[in-house]
Amino acid sequence: MRAALAAARLGVRGANPVVGAALVSASGELLHVGHHRGAGTDHAEVDALRRARAAGTSLADATMVVTLEPCHHTGRTGPCSRAILEAGIPRVVHAVGDRTDAAHGGAAWLASQGVEVRHGLLADEALELNDRWFLAQEQSRPFVTLKLAQTLDGRVAAADGTSQWITGAAARAEGHAIRTRVDAVLVGGGTLRTDDPSLTARAPDGTLLERQPLRAVMSTRPVPDHARVRRGPGAGDDRFVHLPTHDPRAALDRLHALGVSHVLVEGGPTVAAAFLAADLVDELVLHQAPLLLGDGPASVAGLGIGTLAAASSWRGDPVGVPGGDAPVAAVGRDLRWHLRPVSRGPAQPPGGPSAVP
Amino acid sequence: MRAALAAARLGVRGANPVVGAALVSASGELLHVGHHRGAGTDHAEVDALRRARAAGTSLADATMVVTLEPCHHTGRTGPCSRAILEAGIPRVVHAVGDRTDAAHGGAAWLASQGVEVRHGLLADEALELNDRWFLAQEQSRPFVTLKLAQTLDGRVAAADGTSQWITGAAARAEGHAIRTRVDAVLVGGGTLRTDDPSLTARAPDGTLLERQPLRAVMSTRPVPDHARVRRGPGAGDDRFVHLPTHDPRAALDRLHALGVSHVLVEGGPTVAAAFLAADLVDELVLHQAPLLLGDGPASVAGLGIGTLAAASSWRGDPVGVPGGDAPVAAVGRDLRWHLRPVSRGPAQPPGGPSAVP
Repeated sequence: MRAALAAARLGVRGANPVVGAALVSASGELLHVGHHRGAGTDHAEVDALRRARAAGTSLADATMVVTLEPCHHTGRTGPCSRAILEAGIPRVVHAVGDRTDAAHGGAAWLASQGVEVRHGLLADEALELNDRWFLAQEQSRPFVTLKLAQTLDGRVAAADGTSQWITGAAARAEGHAIRTRVDAVLVGGGTLRTDDPSLTARAPDGTLLERQPLRAVMSTRPVPDHARVRRGPGAGDDRFVHLPTHDPRAALDRLHALGVSHVLVEGGPTVAAAFLAADLVDELVLHQAPLLLGDGPASVAGLGIGTLAAASSWRGDPVGVPGGDAPVAAVGRDLRWHLRPVSRGPAQPPGGPSAVP
Repeated sequence: MRAALAAARLGVRGANPVVGAALVSASGELLHVGHHRGAGTDHAEVDALRRARAAGTSLADATMVVTLEPCHHTGRTGPCSRAILEAGIPRVVHAVGDRTDAAHGGAAWLASQGVEVRHGLLADEALELNDRWFLAQEQSRPFVTLKLAQTLDGRVAAADGTSQWITGAAARAEGHAIRTRVDAVLVGGGTLRTDDPSLTARAPDGTLLERQPLRAVMSTRPVPDHARVRRGPGAGDDRFVHLPTHDPRAALDRLHALGVSHVLVEGGPTVAAAFLAADLVDELVLHQAPLLLGDGPASVAGLGIGTLAAASSWRGDPVGVPGGDAPVAAVGRDLRWHLRPVSRGPAQPPGGPSAVP
């Protein structure tokens, strides 16, 4: 399970949980590992099975060890439960159960097919890996990534409103890589009016990447017809949505109804503060430029926090970092800090663990 | 010279320039390298000679390659010029000359003693290594390190003024390691009144480190008798100075007159802004905590910068980083970014380079 957990940490955060799998021989030897690389790609179990097949490894007496219960549904990929059965694997050990309506039931189905199934091994660690993802699932909302791009002193624009570009080319390229990975990109009305962003995912040469996010503006004011965000790729308005609310939960409900599983919130300060104050940010990517302004709007507006002890607390997160880098790293001349919220209470496991020898 | 430059980069910024030295055989083989580890320790040349002596290396036909002209004065250490001559080294190549009144003349003296001396090799790189140090020397002022300790969103205190502690134990320990290395620590009147800091250099257990900086308060208002900064170690008031000015240049002049070669400015925002706006910060150490406040004072007050293109520009600096880490690194739960100003024009070499084959 340690190998599976380590593999899981190579994944990216977002629409799907991060999951790792390890194939272990009857004598306890680690045969192959696999991990899930993000929505639309192979699940961890299938990734490990593919490696076993490529190597010609016999799995007739192997155990599939996986950080999350194998899925039992056909989404963008096939059910892992069936793949495991078809590979002839006699034993499955998973850390935590999958409670999502769509995917759960894999363990029970495998057991009904004669596979020996146990769960609970290193459940706390596996749970902690995806606690915010489980929370988003429980709340029936998309997973939320917040990206801040600010100066060294926390400004997102100069006194005259100029903000392009605070960060350099490498950090901006990372930003576009996140855009192409998520289902939707959201900004507020202030950013719309100040920057008139297109919110498309682009290559460094300006060409559009293949996968484009839904473009969302959260504002009670109308979005002008000439706004760039209306004119991006996609037939008509089907890749643009106006969310006429100041309530981040209402915005997420609407996105959820539109099939969005992962949304990237790109600001500005008021929208960032609204999501933060509501504890609706699951992952934070900070891009910070080596510039000082001394004036201009701060990256995060008021959160209603009066004293230091009540500060919103985060910690560096090595999971889901581009290129497998450390949570803190130089990106061109800028820095990137990849963070996750420090949970305010113990996470609730989806299904209690059972003893595993 | 490449080896000497690489060695120089292992040094620390401050009262002395960073300098590296390499001993090279007649056939061009690299024998030994050395570098200067900060004020009061061996100069780079002496460090390299010590290694040669320990290894029993013959230097009768060696060349001493050094990034800065060997010094010719007795400060806390003896003159390098004499050490080179006494080691019987027949050739010296240095990158750039030393124009400081106290130390210059080493090259001329060595030549007068029959040593072959050349200079100018990789002079641009050697100059760039110490350009801010040369600038401070030319301006007859201490080298200035600014340290900022802020939240992720650039705040140095919460709305109610609470600020202890924004950063964690590891970052605070780094801060004390810098205090014990500098000659003086300076804060403004706002920090004095809000935090009543002692400005001593302390170990994690609170005990005083051996070498204590001069404690300086820059404020036109009086420093109360009960202020902690008055009551630190040192006989009477001889380790405390009140600088009754708002002009950072005047404060530096006074410190220079007191024999301070390296001052650490620890804030607050107004003092930081005053030094930054006057281009009187030579090195910047940012400690940033994974906390969001949304309100509270920003780390740097107004700089008179109206538009992004006029932002104060910095770059990550791998020289002088604690532990030889990268400019950006995790320090406990926090991050540290070590930066130097991007110069506003070409640096002027102290003495033009001459051709070296």
